[in-house]
Amino acid sequence: MHDATPNPGRVHITEVGPRDGLQNETVLLSTLEKAELVRALVTAGVKEFELTSFVSPRAVPALADAAELVAKLKDIEGVHFSALVPNLRGAERALEAGVDSVVLFVSASESHNAKNVNCSVDQSLASFERVARLLEGSGVELRGAIATCFGCPFEGNVDVAAVGHIASRFAELGARYVSLGDTTGMATPPLVTERILHLRDVAPSLSPTLHFHNTRGIGLANVMQGLALGVDRYESSIGGLGGCPFAPGATGNIASEDLVYLLDEMGIETGIDLDGMIKAAHVATRLMGRPLPAQVSKAGPRLSLSDCSAVATAKG
Amino acid sequence: MHDATPNPGRVHITEVGPRDGLQNETVLLSTLEKAELVRALVTAGVKEFELTSFVSPRAVPALADAAELVAKLKDIEGVHFSALVPNLRGAERALEAGVDSVVLFVSASESHNAKNVNCSVDQSLASFERVARLLEGSGVELRGAIATCFGCPFEGNVDVAAVGHIASRFAELGARYVSLGDTTGMATPPLVTERILHLRDVAPSLSPTLHFHNTRGIGLANVMQGLALGVDRYESSIGGLGGCPFAPGATGNIASEDLVYLLDEMGIETGIDLDGMIKAAHVATRLMGRPLPAQVSKAGPRLSLSDCSAVATAKG
Repeated sequence: MHDATPNPGRVHITEVGPRDGLQNETVLLSTLEKAELVRALVTAGVKEFELTSFVSPRAVPALADAAELVAKLKDIEGVHFSALVPNLRGAERALEAGVDSVVLFVSASESHNAKNVNCSVDQSLASFERVARLLEGSGVELRGAIATCFGCPFEGNVDVAAVGHIASRFAELGARYVSLGDTTGMATPPLVTERILHLRDVAPSLSPTLHFHNTRGIGLANVMQGLALGVDRYESSIGGLGGCPFAPGATGNIASEDLVYLLDEMGIETGIDLDGMIKAAHVATRLMGRPLPAQVSKAGPRLSLSDCSAVATAKG
Repeated sequence: MHDATPNPGRVHITEVGPRDGLQNETVLLSTLEKAELVRALVTAGVKEFELTSFVSPRAVPALADAAELVAKLKDIEGVHFSALVPNLRGAERALEAGVDSVVLFVSASESHNAKNVNCSVDQSLASFERVARLLEGSGVELRGAIATCFGCPFEGNVDVAAVGHIASRFAELGARYVSLGDTTGMATPPLVTERILHLRDVAPSLSPTLHFHNTRGIGLANVMQGLALGVDRYESSIGGLGGCPFAPGATGNIASEDLVYLLDEMGIETGIDLDGMIKAAHVATRLMGRPLPAQVSKAGPRLSLSDCSAVATAKG
């Protein structure tokens, strides 16, 4: 029993709504609409974005405008735009488009990697060496993302050693940041602890980023566990944009404004303004044309008070 | 930084869907439908219910059948049914109906108490003495519930001393259990810590029950904080039934099945079967005729696997 759980005093949030959110939505946004959403988030103080993916436009039509979107946001300064890429071809396109970092992605489970990028985990890792050579001296940073880190929708449990093996390879390729993807919302507090402690053992140079989905409602409980472990990097999507392709009706990424609200209330700095995030969430809601899962943008911040004389009584 | 946050090995969950959930829904269920839902929850292993309120039927039409509902469930053994009551008249009706415990309720903030039960906090507390005398020797337990413990929708912040004062009075009246109500979803992890530590100081004989709403998305993050403090009693509603009368579109109580899922995954015993809770959530969804906010009942438990050949790829 203790008074205050230890936690980092400052947390970095990467906004993944434009990529992970939108690619799982059925409504397709135009490049201009995406840029409007990104600018609203920049106004709120967001400094890092996973903006898009350079993957096959046939496989992910929602992100077919990757290069155009990067071009549309070229005037924005002091903000880091990353893009996911599965292989050398994607990295070449990302480099040409002018992103700040290239995020190489691979799954921790073989069947998900096969389904996702049609090759084995080792084949993915081998192809990453060529990307690392391509990026050398380019000024573009290499980062890693590991999907299905906490469980695979096809295989079930994922061995922590598989996550550690891939993370070590990313560290060898020079990555400082590696994102642990909870692709289908299978992370739990004990798994967060196990995986973070293992990474600290096998890849101590890495700074892990926790990427949770709220598919089973416990996304922010997992963030609490990450904070207690001192993890200071999280990925989230505005409004909770996105969904889960394996569970109709389930939600996707944890919602950025709910995360900012939680961190604000815990006295943890993010550099992001909650009111600005709520405005950005309203932009996202308007563009998608449906209510999004996030809560703070519906209820307002904690001290949004009601007029005592104007509301119905709740009784009890 | 630590490996495992301390937490209680066993947690007691009180299901409040039939009371706090239904009184905030616009759809009115019949007594038979409520009994069907309660029986599905009993089958899942739920052992404690906040079943209804004995309040004015004009003020809360959804709970006008309080006595009839208690009568309909008389054959169920080994389950504790409690009912909220605001005053002596309510307690007399609850006693006559045959509940296992009477939960006296009052708000920690004056304006909410005035709005809710049309009297001051001190007037509520004074009336409770008569209820305590009524219950003496009756075999019916007296419990307490404090609304707006973490914030008031009219006044904003609520002084921790106001919560402690009321809790001490409940302890003097012989209550062992007092529920701390997060009536409109204003609880945060630091407030949970502050209030729990204060109660341990001023009313050490009490076992506090945490009653969170997910209005701002951080209900289960607050549960994580409660667990870290060793609190072993929580209230939740099946499916996340309910809503917030002050924030249209906002959710109500934390969802019972999501809570059971989180605790199961943390290795904390509840005595409740998750599959049974998902079945009960489906009953609730059918009765309400709308999708409910809970997630696990949509996505299925963690290891609900997909057929690799049958689903669309997610890419990244």
